Amino acid sequence: MNRENELLTLYWKNNQLYILDQRYLPQKIEYRVCLSYSDVVDSICEMSVRGAPAIGISAGFGVALAAREALDKGYNKDQMITYLNKAADKLFQSRPTAVNLYWALDRMKNWLNTHVKESPKQIAEGLTREAKIILEEDLENNRQIGKNGALLIPPRATVLTHCNAGALATGGYGTALGVIRAAIENGSEVHVFVDETRPLLQGARLTAVELVQEKIPATLITDNCAGSLMAQGKIDLIIVGADRIAGNGDTANKIGTYSLAVLASYHDIPFYVAAPLSTIDLSISSGDEIIVEERHRKEVTHFNERCIAPEGIEVCNPAFDVTPARLIKAIITERGLVYKPDREKLNNLFQKV
Amino acid sequence: MNRENELLTLYWKNNQLYILDQRYLPQKIEYRVCLSYSDVVDSICEMSVRGAPAIGISAGFGVALAAREALDKGYNKDQMITYLNKAADKLFQSRPTAVNLYWALDRMKNWLNTHVKESPKQIAEGLTREAKIILEEDLENNRQIGKNGALLIPPRATVLTHCNAGALATGGYGTALGVIRAAIENGSEVHVFVDETRPLLQGARLTAVELVQEKIPATLITDNCAGSLMAQGKIDLIIVGADRIAGNGDTANKIGTYSLAVLASYHDIPFYVAAPLSTIDLSISSGDEIIVEERHRKEVTHFNERCIAPEGIEVCNPAFDVTPARLIKAIITERGLVYKPDREKLNNLFQKV
Repeated sequence: MNRENELLTLYWKNNQLYILDQRYLPQKIEYRVCLSYSDVVDSICEMSVRGAPAIGISAGFGVALAAREALDKGYNKDQMITYLNKAADKLFQSRPTAVNLYWALDRMKNWLNTHVKESPKQIAEGLTREAKIILEEDLENNRQIGKNGALLIPPRATVLTHCNAGALATGGYGTALGVIRAAIENGSEVHVFVDETRPLLQGARLTAVELVQEKIPATLITDNCAGSLMAQGKIDLIIVGADRIAGNGDTANKIGTYSLAVLASYHDIPFYVAAPLSTIDLSISSGDEIIVEERHRKEVTHFNERCIAPEGIEVCNPAFDVTPARLIKAIITERGLVYKPDREKLNNLFQKV
Repeated sequence: MNRENELLTLYWKNNQLYILDQRYLPQKIEYRVCLSYSDVVDSICEMSVRGAPAIGISAGFGVALAAREALDKGYNKDQMITYLNKAADKLFQSRPTAVNLYWALDRMKNWLNTHVKESPKQIAEGLTREAKIILEEDLENNRQIGKNGALLIPPRATVLTHCNAGALATGGYGTALGVIRAAIENGSEVHVFVDETRPLLQGARLTAVELVQEKIPATLITDNCAGSLMAQGKIDLIIVGADRIAGNGDTANKIGTYSLAVLASYHDIPFYVAAPLSTIDLSISSGDEIIVEERHRKEVTHFNERCIAPEGIEVCNPAFDVTPARLIKAIITERGLVYKPDREKLNNLFQKV
């Protein structure tokens, strides 16, 4: 299969990681070739790859690349493990909010810890295998999230989504968009409204592309417009993805998600979050503990290298906001729906076999 | 006074109207010279000039230009009046939502009706004078709106505003920004948060420029970000302008205003509208009757001629939305504050001498 011709978020080939450089979409389809874990760190920092699950998968492959590098350098076991720890640290620091990054790194470390007696070559191969499994499981989880969430979509529905929680944010299929895909596969007539999602326009540049490619009826709007459409009764429900879900169900997602949740509450529109268990962080008790990344002012003041604001203006550019659990009707996971999410229900999710 | 060196929204010189071409701000300061009423129609349609009061003033000068054209063409009185009616019709159709446009055209027509016996030359001079008076009165009204509204601003306050309701939207000083200016003149310490205001970015390109020029502390944010700042307690109050206020107080303003008003209500933050009486349309009973202009899809899909969305995606691009009166704490006018606006209170406003 000639995978390069498909619009894959990322793929592994000849011991190299190919990351679709999403900064250039929809104008240019270009893959960023990662030969080292540093290339992966850069790809995450610079947002060539984004979306919590996709960041996690990339980090997994980043560790695999580090092992390959160690092997190429002829390191012995101790040197390799030192190098792997350094790589994991750097990957850990690449972005602060999406917890899937830490989840994937923990998983890679766990594999290493239980296989530490193997040879450097076996370790490199094993870590590569583990990263591939993370990718495959993510795709499988998304299909299950889709199945579970599709039950929430009426036979005819208009669905608003924000940012990109689609195939391009994950190993494939998507979380929020996965639910929409599954509903359509089930025969629902769905019309999607897509927030363009400033400042980086992941809605316009990524989600709209996925929907057009699959001929799913969709309308692009400015983020500003969503409230007015709700007031006009044009939105039946809202589904978004998540970057981190605290133990009590508070959810960090792309900036603007919180406003949508408040507007949904005001208009009595169901507001759903679709995310795999790897996005749930039971180690923190509420959204207050989630670190929200503040990104560079230039994302707001410049567009396509053209300055759209006066020099000297201050900028506040948080990449995410936190939606309190009380505004979320249900969290859609691969292990089922969690209505009115709270600590107990989220804890129980992890007890299921 | 060399007025060309100032950043005036528009000015009249040598029987020509100079309109600051706001499409090119902040990168380029360029005035569009209007030699005919058609030039004014184009300037309004293409949004070289925008902001309800500024559109009204421009339309007034458009009629004055039509009278000058008729004079230059050597028209007799009847021909001139036919030409003026045609000009008024075209100006009338230039944009549908801001009622100040119709208000100004009515005023010009009223002047004509009461001076119809004068010579073509006298009519041309009289209409020019009337347009200048509209401009001067607008500036004066804005200063009074500022004085009235400044009483609502605490000694230390953070104020969120949307789009541009500043000097650049009016004959000068501004409505919402006029209130902020007046509060600062009164000694208040105000920090302004400015929504960038997609799709045409009037917040980033115009409001931010006005604030930086006057060294008013200000922070630019994406429209997405406002709700999150409110949740964090960072916004004390919100002031916006208006394009049309229905008889019951329902207010059409730039798309996104409605969402802000709902968010303000949810967070118990006062939400104010600042506008002159010329924005109030007693002829309609509620916001349901306000025609909301749908603008071209390219405003959303393209940026600086670069396509940011896939071809084939549908777009919904209303320029305005309608905020119901119940979400507005007060309307700030040149004749005073109208708390909890309703038909009776707005009617009374017009009875005052």
